[in-house]
Amino acid sequence: MNSFGRIFRVSVAGESHGPAIGVIIDGCPSGIPLAAEDFAADADRRRGGRPGTTARREDDVPEMMSGVYKGRTTGAPILALVHNRDARPEAYAELVHTPRPGHADWTAWHKYGGFNDPRGGGHFSGRLTVALVVAGVVAKKLIAPARVDARVVEIGGSADYAQLLEQARAEGDSLGGIVECRASGVPAGLGEPFFDSLESLISAAVFAVPAVKGIEFGEGFAAARLRGSTMNDAILDAAGRTATNHSGGINGGISNGNDIVFRVAIKPTSSIGLPQRTIDLRTGEPAEIRVEGRHDVCIALRAPVVIEAVTAIVLADAQRTA
Amino acid sequence: MNSFGRIFRVSVAGESHGPAIGVIIDGCPSGIPLAAEDFAADADRRRGGRPGTTARREDDVPEMMSGVYKGRTTGAPILALVHNRDARPEAYAELVHTPRPGHADWTAWHKYGGFNDPRGGGHFSGRLTVALVVAGVVAKKLIAPARVDARVVEIGGSADYAQLLEQARAEGDSLGGIVECRASGVPAGLGEPFFDSLESLISAAVFAVPAVKGIEFGEGFAAARLRGSTMNDAILDAAGRTATNHSGGINGGISNGNDIVFRVAIKPTSSIGLPQRTIDLRTGEPAEIRVEGRHDVCIALRAPVVIEAVTAIVLADAQRTA
Amino acid sequence: MNSFGRIFRVSVAGESHGPAIGVIIDGCPSGIPLAAEDFAADADRRRGGRPGTTARREDDVPEMMSGVYKGRTTGAPILALVHNRDARPEAYAELVHTPRPGHADWTAWHKYGGFNDPRGGGHFSGRLTVALVVAGVVAKKLIAPARVDARVVEIGGSADYAQLLEQARAEGDSLGGIVECRASGVPAGLGEPFFDSLESLISAAVFAVPAVKGIEFGEGFAAARLRGSTMNDAILDAAGRTATNHSGGINGGISNGNDIVFRVAIKPTSSIGLPQRTIDLRTGEPAEIRVEGRHDVCIALRAPVVIEAVTAIVLADAQRTA
Amino acid sequence: MNSFGRIFRVSVAGESHGPAIGVIIDGCPSGIPLAAEDFAADADRRRGGRPGTTARREDDVPEMMSGVYKGRTTGAPILALVHNRDARPEAYAELVHTPRPGHADWTAWHKYGGFNDPRGGGHFSGRLTVALVVAGVVAKKLIAPARVDARVVEIGGSADYAQLLEQARAEGDSLGGIVECRASGVPAGLGEPFFDSLESLISAAVFAVPAVKGIEFGEGFAAARLRGSTMNDAILDAAGRTATNHSGGINGGISNGNDIVFRVAIKPTSSIGLPQRTIDLRTGEPAEIRVEGRHDVCIALRAPVVIEAVTAIVLADAQRTA
Repeated sequence: MNSFGRIFRVSVAGESHGPAIGVIIDGCPSGIPLAAEDFAADADRRRGGRPGTTARREDDVPEMMSGVYKGRTTGAPILALVHNRDARPEAYAELVHTPRPGHADWTAWHKYGGFNDPRGGGHFSGRLTVALVVAGVVAKKLIAPARVDARVVEIGGSADYAQLLEQARAEGDSLGGIVECRASGVPAGLGEPFFDSLESLISAAVFAVPAVKGIEFGEGFAAARLRGSTMNDAILDAAGRTATNHSGGINGGISNGNDIVFRVAIKPTSSIGLPQRTIDLRTGEPAEIRVEGRHDVCIALRAPVVIEAVTAIVLADAQRTA
Repeated sequence: MNSFGRIFRVSVAGESHGPAIGVIIDGCPSGIPLAAEDFAADADRRRGGRPGTTARREDDVPEMMSGVYKGRTTGAPILALVHNRDARPEAYAELVHTPRPGHADWTAWHKYGGFNDPRGGGHFSGRLTVALVVAGVVAKKLIAPARVDARVVEIGGSADYAQLLEQARAEGDSLGGIVECRASGVPAGLGEPFFDSLESLISAAVFAVPAVKGIEFGEGFAAARLRGSTMNDAILDAAGRTATNHSGGINGGISNGNDIVFRVAIKPTSSIGLPQRTIDLRTGEPAEIRVEGRHDVCIALRAPVVIEAVTAIVLADAQRTA
Repeated sequence: MNSFGRIFRVSVAGESHGPAIGVIIDGCPSGIPLAAEDFAADADRRRGGRPGTTARREDDVPEMMSGVYKGRTTGAPILALVHNRDARPEAYAELVHTPRPGHADWTAWHKYGGFNDPRGGGHFSGRLTVALVVAGVVAKKLIAPARVDARVVEIGGSADYAQLLEQARAEGDSLGGIVECRASGVPAGLGEPFFDSLESLISAAVFAVPAVKGIEFGEGFAAARLRGSTMNDAILDAAGRTATNHSGGINGGISNGNDIVFRVAIKPTSSIGLPQRTIDLRTGEPAEIRVEGRHDVCIALRAPVVIEAVTAIVLADAQRTA
Repeated sequence: MNSFGRIFRVSVAGESHGPAIGVIIDGCPSGIPLAAEDFAADADRRRGGRPGTTARREDDVPEMMSGVYKGRTTGAPILALVHNRDARPEAYAELVHTPRPGHADWTAWHKYGGFNDPRGGGHFSGRLTVALVVAGVVAKKLIAPARVDARVVEIGGSADYAQLLEQARAEGDSLGGIVECRASGVPAGLGEPFFDSLESLISAAVFAVPAVKGIEFGEGFAAARLRGSTMNDAILDAAGRTATNHSGGINGGISNGNDIVFRVAIKPTSSIGLPQRTIDLRTGEPAEIRVEGRHDVCIALRAPVVIEAVTAIVLADAQRTA
C-alpha cells in the first residue's frame, strides 16, 4: 500500500497530472517548528530545471492543511498538499494506449483493469516523490542531530559525466547512475532482528522510489568477493567504534553507531525520444513510440534528496520504535 | 519486529542454543496438504554437513503444534517447532564477553542492555533461518504453479570455487558469495505502488536473512551504466511479454508476468578461526579472539533455500492482497 | 494512529477550524463509479441544521484530489478534501485555556504538551467524522449488495424524544442517545478468530467515533442475564440460517450470514451552555465556563450515518482479507 | 489475524485438543525478571476446577522456549507453550458433524471449508485464552506500577448468584455475567485520536475473548440517558483530576489519568446439557444435540483474569507507542 512506518507513518496520494500530490504524516511529535521555508531547499533539489533534468516547473512549496498550528506541529496528523500547477496532460494524450517500455504503464493498466489514470504515469509518476521529500523534511528534523546526505557518485558509469549527459540528450537517450547515501550520528540500537532489520526497512523505503534497481550496504556486492578476515570490522571500544566500516554501520539488522552507508542503483530514465517497440492496448497490434514530453536525461540527478528523504523517514520511525 | 506479511503472516522466535526454534504461520488458507516429509528436502538443503558448511547436525523436521488436522491445514495459525537437539552452548562460553567482529554480538548487547542470550548469537543466529525455511515450504505450496529457484552463482568471486573453499578452510578464513533467485510463473499484477512495491517487499524479506549485504533486480547495478534505449524492455504483446527482461520482471513495483530475477550479495561468514581484534565487555579492554566453534567456511552455500523461502513468503502474501 | 484497515485502508487528517478535512482511502478496487453527488445524501445526513443539531453550515461535498479518473476509481489511493468554509475559530478563542469538561481538550493539551490546535477541539472535533462519512460512501459501494442501516432508537432514555430535545435546548443542556445499526446481506465468513474478530474490528472502528461510550452485539448486555438455552440460536440449515439472532450475526468472531446487529451508546454532547467547573491551564486556578459556540443538543442525532460509515469500512476491509 | 499490538505484539496459536497452545510475545523489553512461578496465580485463576467451572485439569504452567535467559527477558521474542495434557478429543467425536448452537462450529466449518479442527471448538476454544493470560502476565509487569483488576459483578442478573449457579447446573443450563475491569495508575496520554483510541484498542482486545457480547466505558449505556450537565466530569486541577469519573478515565480516546473503568457482558456458556436444535453437516438434515463434555456452567467466572490480561496487553503496547 501507499503507507510506510509503524509510529511515524507516511501515506502518499496523487497523480502526475491531477490537481495535487498529497501526503499524510502521522505520528509526528508535537512542538516541532515547521514553516513553508523549511521545505524550499529540498524541494528545489528535487525539482527539475537544471542540466539533465526536465523543464517542468513547479514551485513545490507544500500547503499545510492540518497538523501545524502557530508554526509548530500539533501532534495530530499533518496533511500537506503540493499542487500540480504546471501539469500538461495533453502532452501524454497519444501515449495513453501505447504503454511506454520500462514504465509502469502496462502493469498499471493490467493491475487496475484499464481504469488507472495513464496521464504521465498517473500515480506511478516520479512526480509523487515530491510527497516523499515533504515527509523527509519533517523526518530530518526528528532525527537531528543525526543527518542524512546523499549524492550522485556515478552517471553512465563515470564520476565525470557532464559530456555523457550532453551526448545522451542530443541523441534522445537517457542515462542511469549510482547514488551513495550516508547517515551519520545515528545512535546504535536502531532496527530489529529479522524482518524489521534496518537494512530491510531502508531497502523497502528505497525501492519505493521509482527507477531504483539495486541497493547495497557497506561493501555490498564487493563483500561477496572478500574474505571474512578482511570484511569483519575490528571492534575498538565498548561504544562499538570499529577500525573499518565494511558493514556499513549495521550488524544483525541493528545500527552499530558508525555511519550507515549504502549505494543505490538507478536505471536510466525510461522516457526517451528514440523509437521503441510496444503495442497498442486497443488492438493488441505492435506499435512504435517516441516519448515527446518533458523528461529527464538522467533521473538519478534528482534522486539524492529523495533517497535522503526515505532514509530519514525510516530512521525517524525506527527511533520511535527502538 | 519478528513478523512479516499482511495476510499471510510469518512470525519467528528462538535462539541458537535454546530448546527450539518456533514459527507461527498465520493466514494460511485451509485444505493445503501438509506432512512432515514436505519439509525434508528444503530442511536438508539448508542444513550443514556438506563441504564448506558447519558440522552441526540437526534433522530439522518441524513438529506441528497447531493448524494442521488430518494432514491438511485448517485455516488456523500453524505453530511449528524445530528442536535444537545438537546445541552445544559451552562452545561459545568464552565468547560471551568478547563480541565477534562482523556479528550482531555487540549490537544485541547494546540494544538489549546486556540481557540478550549471547550463546552462538542467540536470536540473531543463522540457526533461525530454519524457521524461514519451514514457512517457505508452506508458502511454496500456496504460490504453485509459480515456483522459486535460487542457486549460488559465485563464491569468492568465482563460479568455480571448490579449491577456493578448501583453501579458505585450511587458512581458517571464510568466503562470501552471490545467490541468484528466479521466480517463474508469477502472475502479473502482484505488488503495490510505492512502499509495498514487490522490490520493497522482497528486499525487506531478503535483508531479514543474516549476512545479506546487497540485492539487485534485473540488470541491477549494471543498469546504472546502461542507456535507456538498451535498458527498456520492448513490449511484445498485450499479455506483457517483453523481448528482454532487463527489469527483472517488475515495473513500477508490480510484477509484469515475466520471470522475477534478482541477485543477493552474501558476505563471508563472520566466524573465522583467525585471530581478530575486539574488546572485553566486562573491562572495555582490547581482546583478541579466534572463533573455535563449528561454523561455515561459506554461509552463501546454504543461503539459496533460505532466499527461496522468503521470496515465496512475499509472493504468497502479495497474491493474497493483490 | 489515524488509519484503519489492512487492505482497504482509511487515513484521516484535519482540524475543526483548519482549512480542510482530508482523507486518504487506499486499497480501493479500480473501476468503481464515483461522483460528487454520491456523497450528497450521507453528507447531508451528517450535517447540522436540523432540530437538535448545530447551526454550522457546510456543504461538505468532498473535492477529489486523486484516485478518480473519468468518473471511476483508478485503484490508486483516493485523496478527498472537505473544506471548512464556515469555520469561526474566534468563537472558541476564550476557551483555549479552559479545557471543556467531557471533551478531549485536557487530554490533547497534556498529550501534545500544549502544542495541539485547541480551536473547537482541533483534530478531536466531531467535524472529523465528515472524513469517515466520505470513506463510508466508498465502502458502501464495495460491500453492495450488503447494506448498512443505522438509526436512533432512543434519546434521553425515550423513543419519543421531540419534547426532551426542546426542553434540553431551552435549558442549555444536552442529551445522549442510542443508535442501532444493522448490516444485512453480509456473507458468512467475514472476520478472523481472536484479535481480528468482526466484533473487535467493528468495535474498534465505532469507538473511533467521538462520544461513543458503549457497544453491544445481538442481545449484548441483556445476554448476561439470559440462560444458554435461551441465548443459543438454533441452527436451521447448512447455510447457517438460525431460528433467532441473539448472537447478532456473529459467532466466534465470524459473520454467520444472518444480519449483523449492534447498538451504540452515545453520551450527551459535552458542549453545553450551562456553567461548568474547570481550570485555567495558564494559572492552574479554578475557572467556570459556558460553551457559547454553535453546538448540538444531541450529537446522537447525527451519529447514525457515521456509525454506518465505519461499519461499512470494516466490512469492506474484512471482505478483502477473508 | 491472531496478532495484537504494534510494538508489544502478541500472537496466539493452538487448538483445544492439539498438543499445545503457543504464544509469541514480541517487542518485550529486555531485563524483565520472568520465572515459571510468575504465571501460577493468573493461570490458576483462569483454570477450571471450582464451582461453576469445568472439571478439565491442566497445570497450565507455560514452558518458555525462547526470549528468556538467566531468568530475565532478553529482548528477543518470547515463545511460550502451554501443553494440553488433559485433552480428551474423543468426548467431542460425535459433535464433529453437528455444529453446536452459539459456538463457532458452523462459522469455522463454513469459513475454512470443512478443514477446521472441530474437536472442542479447535482454535476457537476458550482454551486459547490461556495464551492471553500468559501474555497478560508479562504485560502486567511492563505497566507496573499501573495495575489492572477485574471481577465478576453479576451472574445471571444478580450479584448474589451461588444458588443460581447450582440451579442452572442441575438443569443442564448455563448463565452469563458481567465483569468489571479497572485499570489504576495509568498515566494520562495513552491512546491516539480516532482509530487507535484507547477505547478502540481495549474493545478490540476484549472482543477477542470468546463469549463477550458488549463493552461499556464509564457510564456506558447509562450515559445515553444522562444529560451533559450530569455526565461531564468537572476538571479539578492541571493534572487532570476530575470530580467524578463518568467518562471512565478516557476523553477523546486518550487516558486522562483517572482510573480506566469498563464493564464487559459475557453471554451464557454455549455448551449446555439440554437438547438443542442444529443440523447434520453431512446430510443437511435437522438434528438434536446435547453437549456432554466437561464445560462451565458460567464462563464469566473465569473471565476476569482474561479481561485483565488483554487490558494489560493493550496498555503495555499503548505506553510503548505514546
